[in-house]
Formats: sequence, structure tokens, C-alpha cells
Amino acid sequence: MQQDFQNDTIVALATPAGTGAIAVIRLSGPDSIRIVNKVFHGKNLEEQPSHTLHLGTINDGETLIDEVLVSLFIAPRSYTKEHSAEVSCHASPYIIDRLIRLFIREGARAAKPGEFTQRAFLNGQLDLSQAEAVADLIASTSGASHRVALQQLRGGISGKLQQLREQLIQFASLIELELDFSEEDVEFANREQLSSLVHQIRLELGRMISSFELGNAIKSGLPVVISGKPNAGKSTLLNALLNEERAIVSDIPGTTRDIIEDELVIGGIRFRFIDTAGIRETTDKIEAIGVERAYGKIKQSAIVLYLFDPREVSPVELGGILDEIRTHMAKPENLLAVANKIDLLESEKVRSDYSFAENLLLISAREQQNITILTDALLEKAQAARLDSDETIISNIRHIEALTRTDEALANALEMMEQLVSGELLAFEIRQALHYLGEITGSISNEDLLDSIFSKFCIGK
Amino acid sequence: MQQDFQNDTIVALATPAGTGAIAVIRLSGPDSIRIVNKVFHGKNLEEQPSHTLHLGTINDGETLIDEVLVSLFIAPRSYTKEHSAEVSCHASPYIIDRLIRLFIREGARAAKPGEFTQRAFLNGQLDLSQAEAVADLIASTSGASHRVALQQLRGGISGKLQQLREQLIQFASLIELELDFSEEDVEFANREQLSSLVHQIRLELGRMISSFELGNAIKSGLPVVISGKPNAGKSTLLNALLNEERAIVSDIPGTTRDIIEDELVIGGIRFRFIDTAGIRETTDKIEAIGVERAYGKIKQSAIVLYLFDPREVSPVELGGILDEIRTHMAKPENLLAVANKIDLLESEKVRSDYSFAENLLLISAREQQNITILTDALLEKAQAARLDSDETIISNIRHIEALTRTDEALANALEMMEQLVSGELLAFEIRQALHYLGEITGSISNEDLLDSIFSKFCIGK
Repeated sequence: MQQDFQNDTIVALATPAGTGAIAVIRLSGPDSIRIVNKVFHGKNLEEQPSHTLHLGTINDGETLIDEVLVSLFIAPRSYTKEHSAEVSCHASPYIIDRLIRLFIREGARAAKPGEFTQRAFLNGQLDLSQAEAVADLIASTSGASHRVALQQLRGGISGKLQQLREQLIQFASLIELELDFSEEDVEFANREQLSSLVHQIRLELGRMISSFELGNAIKSGLPVVISGKPNAGKSTLLNALLNEERAIVSDIPGTTRDIIEDELVIGGIRFRFIDTAGIRETTDKIEAIGVERAYGKIKQSAIVLYLFDPREVSPVELGGILDEIRTHMAKPENLLAVANKIDLLESEKVRSDYSFAENLLLISAREQQNITILTDALLEKAQAARLDSDETIISNIRHIEALTRTDEALANALEMMEQLVSGELLAFEIRQALHYLGEITGSISNEDLLDSIFSKFCIGK
Repeated sequence: MQQDFQNDTIVALATPAGTGAIAVIRLSGPDSIRIVNKVFHGKNLEEQPSHTLHLGTINDGETLIDEVLVSLFIAPRSYTKEHSAEVSCHASPYIIDRLIRLFIREGARAAKPGEFTQRAFLNGQLDLSQAEAVADLIASTSGASHRVALQQLRGGISGKLQQLREQLIQFASLIELELDFSEEDVEFANREQLSSLVHQIRLELGRMISSFELGNAIKSGLPVVISGKPNAGKSTLLNALLNEERAIVSDIPGTTRDIIEDELVIGGIRFRFIDTAGIRETTDKIEAIGVERAYGKIKQSAIVLYLFDPREVSPVELGGILDEIRTHMAKPENLLAVANKIDLLESEKVRSDYSFAENLLLISAREQQNITILTDALLEKAQAARLDSDETIISNIRHIEALTRTDEALANALEMMEQLVSGELLAFEIRQALHYLGEITGSISNEDLLDSIFSKFCIGK
């Protein structure tokens, strides 16, 4: 498996570029320790044990470049399972550049993006889904995205897939055995048991596939549209949420003045709140474009929060608005009707007047009343509870594609069994299913696939 | 010396913030290893030897935060001479934040800027000028600034100052001895020898003080004004320099459209080329402002390069222009007259027609002729040769102030000796001189001074 290209030693800056106290330059490959030792003044690094640290200087000929601390990792006790060295130097762009160029002159090669992790994969340290989780882990910005990436890195997905794989292999071997004896018309596999096994596997696959919606949302943030008339108190509500959580992630200036995004981490999940222009029927052309854009946002959102002032929106009007919004939503059940300014009103009356509205919440953004009830509702709609269970969450689009193909192959197999199609075709579908499953962990892989995965990594990882 | 505040353990991110493969969180203080060990799953870190690396996970209660690699440094074998630990984790802002907050919860305190280096200074690992060199080293962006910072870090300045100090102390002790026996009118110190010693010390100080101009220029880049008529070929020259060196540092958009800065590293020295509007007599008011601004830039520049096309500027006109520019220059000898476009002309004729001009160079920017002659001239004017000698280069304004005060005190002492003033006053001046010298290395320091120095550091160093 591409074993040949690993005979060289790669080098790259492993820490972020920029200003800081220290930077780490990483080398991996058979010559890594020898290359560092050639320019290191201090102990003889080639005689030191693994997992030790050595202070010294690195000189380029007569010129002292820096005082450094070198970490040694002797194969296979390293991230890549190769000889590795990490050189911790002062984080000056000039020094980093000089050191990397020096190591290259002494025989190393500049690493490609993700090449350290690629070697870890090729040397069996990580499977492919774990390697991908490394990139997700680095990019994680919330508790939930961190948890999903870490679960994947620690083999959560791999273990699950391994189970499914073993079941399928058992199934396949029975079918293949049947084929070997097909002339004798022996049926080793009990078709009913087989069919029930495939059903069970598809149930499991279905659960993983349906977790992608959450997994993907966790990775990129869950889009929540806040809609309502201009005076409904949308900004006040956003500020109230901010006060509640004090965890603003970033301010994204909207591409248009009428759509503004704010990111907030609530209960470990990142929500992207999209403030749209008021949605109302209009004859004004420009405003109509704004309304159309708002409906576009609603279509893409996971949750819609319709905020209203009960003194401004009658029950009849609200009913019409909610119905209209629902028709644009992928998941109409995720529409929350939020009555604001209840500090100025009688809650009981509001509650009964608008009782027809599903998911009705009463809050006061200004007085910060019931804000936690609202955040709880958001977390419930975000299926946050699934995160606390041991359920495997799929967050990688490549995985979901492979799982979907596996599922399709199994659906075909089931249909064939019902139609009593010959064993050969059945066996083909099962092999297909196994193939797609194997693509996820990389037990079945090809160079193009690997290149496309690792090229998305940052250099130095 | 502020020993009390060091009883706690400090923590900070030591690598730059941003995206990368790994990040390093640094702890220093008596509890640093204990704090990491409390949340580390793997070996018992408190039982491991210094300078070893340990792979494991860090958990916050039940929640796994990351797989990490911990480096252990047992006092006094660390940068700060205290117990220290460095936790190498995945460079995700979320993980870094969780880990630092966890360490703080377990008993560490967020480090102030420069606090690790401040501890290294307070514990005698570095003197003050070396500590300051750490910040300069991190900020170094060229070979020269790197060399000056490294020389200072490696004790180049400290050693020099120590010599001067010892000579002064010897001097002072002779004077003080004389004072003890003053009633007996004994003269232990040969006044002539003393005066020659002070002269010698002042010569050394003068050399260090005059090195500041170069040291400071090296740190912030040497400003070079390129002047000339609009068609003289200034942009072509800048491009030719770029082609020659291929080491553009950055493009600084000028504050006004008529002044543009380009940074270039030539021979390890960073030059800031300032392209000014043409300088010519004008009655136009706006243009007059431009000309005035150009003269302002010339006043601040270290070198001025007047570029001209011999077909457009007669020897008489050039003479007038050069004279005019010189009156605005702090160092008129650093004006280079550069005749461009010699590929289209007879060099011998140009050379003889304009022979009156000092520092005359003939180039062709377009054909890249004689560009190295020009860069050599720039390096000569930049006193680059001083960098190759072992001469101590002062680049820190605090040092130059202390050296200047030392020199003033010694000048007073010399005057007193000539006027045969009493030994008490002489001894006072010598003590003053010793005091100022001591401020540089921090053998004499106060809390305000230290705070002001270390607060300019980045956090984590």
C-alpha cells in the first residue's frame, strides 16, 4: 500500500503560524533523528532513548540559528510509527524558515498536507475514519463537535462498522458456501434467518445514516431562523440568549443587510441564529426579494423561531403566518412559536388565546424570563439528547455516502432473497455492501481516495 | 526579589493561536506536574524522570478532552528553573480552552504576558538583557535582527557590560579607599591612570551607543527613500531589486497615494524602500504638500537613493537636486546618485559628465545591470560589515538610555578629576555609572521596571 514513498523523511511546522512563544517543527521518517542530530549541538541524539527531551542549539555551519528542545520518538513508538523528532524552537517566522530549510538541505522533504496522519494510517496506527477524525478534532469549536470527532478518533465508528462487517462476512460466507455446492441444491443458509440478519443490519445502518443530520449540523452549526415583525424584539432576544450563555463564537456579517448571523454555543451545540427581515405580504418589489430570501433561509434552517408580540399579532394572524412558514420548512415540527413581552401581559390569557399553536413558548426577552425554557426547547429540537447516549454520530459526508451505498446494496439483496434470485447475484450485492463499508475505515482504499482525504488536512498534521 | 509571588503555578498557551496540527500548553511552578497528573490518564507523571515524554489522555471528570503528549521538566532543569510541564494537544481552540480552564480549576493561574521569562530572570536563568532578547528573537524577521537578538540572548551584551562593570568597580574601590584615608592625604589611585581608564571605558560605551543606530534599524528595518522624476524608473528598480533577492517581506500600503513602502531583505538586513513623489519646484499647492512630505521622509531615512535618467537630468540640474536633498538628510554622506537606463547610453560618457556626484552608480533597472553594485552600496551604507565582526550591537532603547546615562556620569567624573574635585563627589558619579550599567542586566532593578519590560511579551513566553 504505497509503501515505497515512505522511505523518505518529511518535515513541516506542526504548530500554527503566527506570533507565540514556541513553535514545533516535526520530522518523520527513517532519517528524522539522524537529520536533526547532524545540525544539533548537545548530546548525540542517535544514542538517546525514545520519549526523551534534549536541550541544545542548532547551527547552520558557523551560524547559530536557535536554542531548541528536541523530542525523540523511536519507531514504532510515534504517531506515524516511524522514527520521529519534534524540534521546539522560538516562534519567529525567520527561525522556523531557517530550520525547515536546513532540515531539507540535510535530507528531509517538505511534508504534504496531512502527510503525517497519512503515514499513521498507512502504518496501521489509525484507520481512515480515525484519521479523518483528527482533522475534525482540530477544527472542533464546540463541545458537541469535539465529542463527535473524539468518538470517531477513539474508534467509535470503526468498532460499530467492524460489528456490521463481521455479521455481513458471516452472511457472505454462507452464501458463498451455498454457491460451491449449488449443483447439489443444498441450502446452507436459512433464508429466513438471513433475511432477518440483513434487516437488523439495515436498521443499524439506518440509525447511523439518520444521525448524519445531527452530526453535520454539529460540525457546521445548526441554522436557526429567527423570524418576526420588526418590533417583535428579535435583537433583544439574541442579546438575552447571549447573556444566558456568554459564549458568543463569532459575528458573521451577513451578505445582505437584511440577513444577519450570530453564532452561539448552547449546551455544547453551536447554533447559527439567522435574523431575517419581517415576513409579510407586500407589493413592494425590493421588499418582496427580501421576503423571498427569508423563505430561502427558512428552507435551509433546522429550526425556525417565530417571535411575536401578542398585542401586535392576533391569534388569527399568527395561525396564518405559522401555516405559511411551515410550508417552507423541511421539518415543520421544528417551528417554535414564541410569544415575547409577557412581562407586560397576562400569561394565562396569552396561553389560552394562542393555545392552538404547537410548540408555544412565553418569554420576556427584555426581562430575561423563561430564556432557559427556550434554550431547552432548542436543544430538544436539536436532538441534543442523542449526544449523551452512546449512539454513533456520523458527521462525515464521505461516510454517509458509503453507508448509503451499503444500505442500497443490502436493500437489493433483500429484494433478491424475496424473489428467490440466484445465489451469485446475492453474493455480488453482499460483496458490494462489504466493499462500501470497507471504504469508510480504509480497509479498502485507493490512492485517489487517500489523496483527496489527506489533501484537506493542514500541513504538519 | 519578589520571591513570594512565585509560589503559585502558572499556565498559558505557548504556541501561536490559530489553525495547526498541534498546540503546546505550558505550566510552570511547584504544582505544575501534580496538576497535570491529576487529570492525566496514563503513567503516574509524578514518578517519572525529568526530560521525558508521556502519551495519555486528559479527562475532565468522565469527559475525555484529548489525547496528549506531556513533557516533564523537573526543577531546576527547566526554562524557569521551576517544575514545568508542557502539554502537547490537538490545536483546536475548543480543546485548548477546555484544557487551560481545567488546569486553572485544578490549581494553576493564567500566566501574565512574559511571566515564564520573568520567572527565568528572577530565578537567575537569564539576566534582564537576555530576557529582553527572547522577545526580540521571537519578533525577528531577518538574518540581521535574528543575529542581534541571538547575540544578546547568548550573553553578548551581558559579557561586555560585565567587563566594563569590573573595570569601574576596580576604579570605585580605589576611590573609596582614598576616601577612608582622606585625612591622611594619601592618594592611592594614580589620577592619570584612572583618567585613562575612564577614557577607555567611555570609548567602549561610545562604540556601543553608536551601534544603536544600526541595531535599531535592524530591528525595525532601514528606511531608504527612492527619489527621482516620475519617469526615472523607480518601480522598475524596485522590481529589479525584488528579482535580485526574491525575498519580499511585505507590502505596506502607504498612508498616502504618493508614498508607497516596500520591504526587502538584502544580505540579511531588512530595508524599507519608500517611493516618494518627484521632488521639483512647484507652484501647485497640492503638489507642494507632496514635496514637503517627501522631504519629511528624507529627513527620517537612513539612505536616499536619487534615481535619474541622464538624458532627462543635466549635470547642472542634478548638482542642484543633490545639494537640495543633502540639506534635508541627517547623514548627507548616505545619498546615492543612481544613473538609470545605462543600457541605452554610453557609460563612460555618463561617468565623466556626472563625475562630480559622490556615490555615483550606473545601472539599468530594466536590464538588471549592476543591481548587485547597488545592493552592495546599500549594505555598505547600512554598515552591514559591523554585523560580521564580533562587535556588540545595541538594539534596545532601554539599553541605550542606560548606556547614555552611564556615559554622562563618567563624563562628569572625568571633569571632576580634571578640576581636582573631592573624592566624595567623584565616588558618587562612579556609583551612578555602576547603577545605570546594572539596570541593563537587571542586577539593579525594581518592580515597575520589570513589569514594564515583561508586559510587552506575548503570553506563554
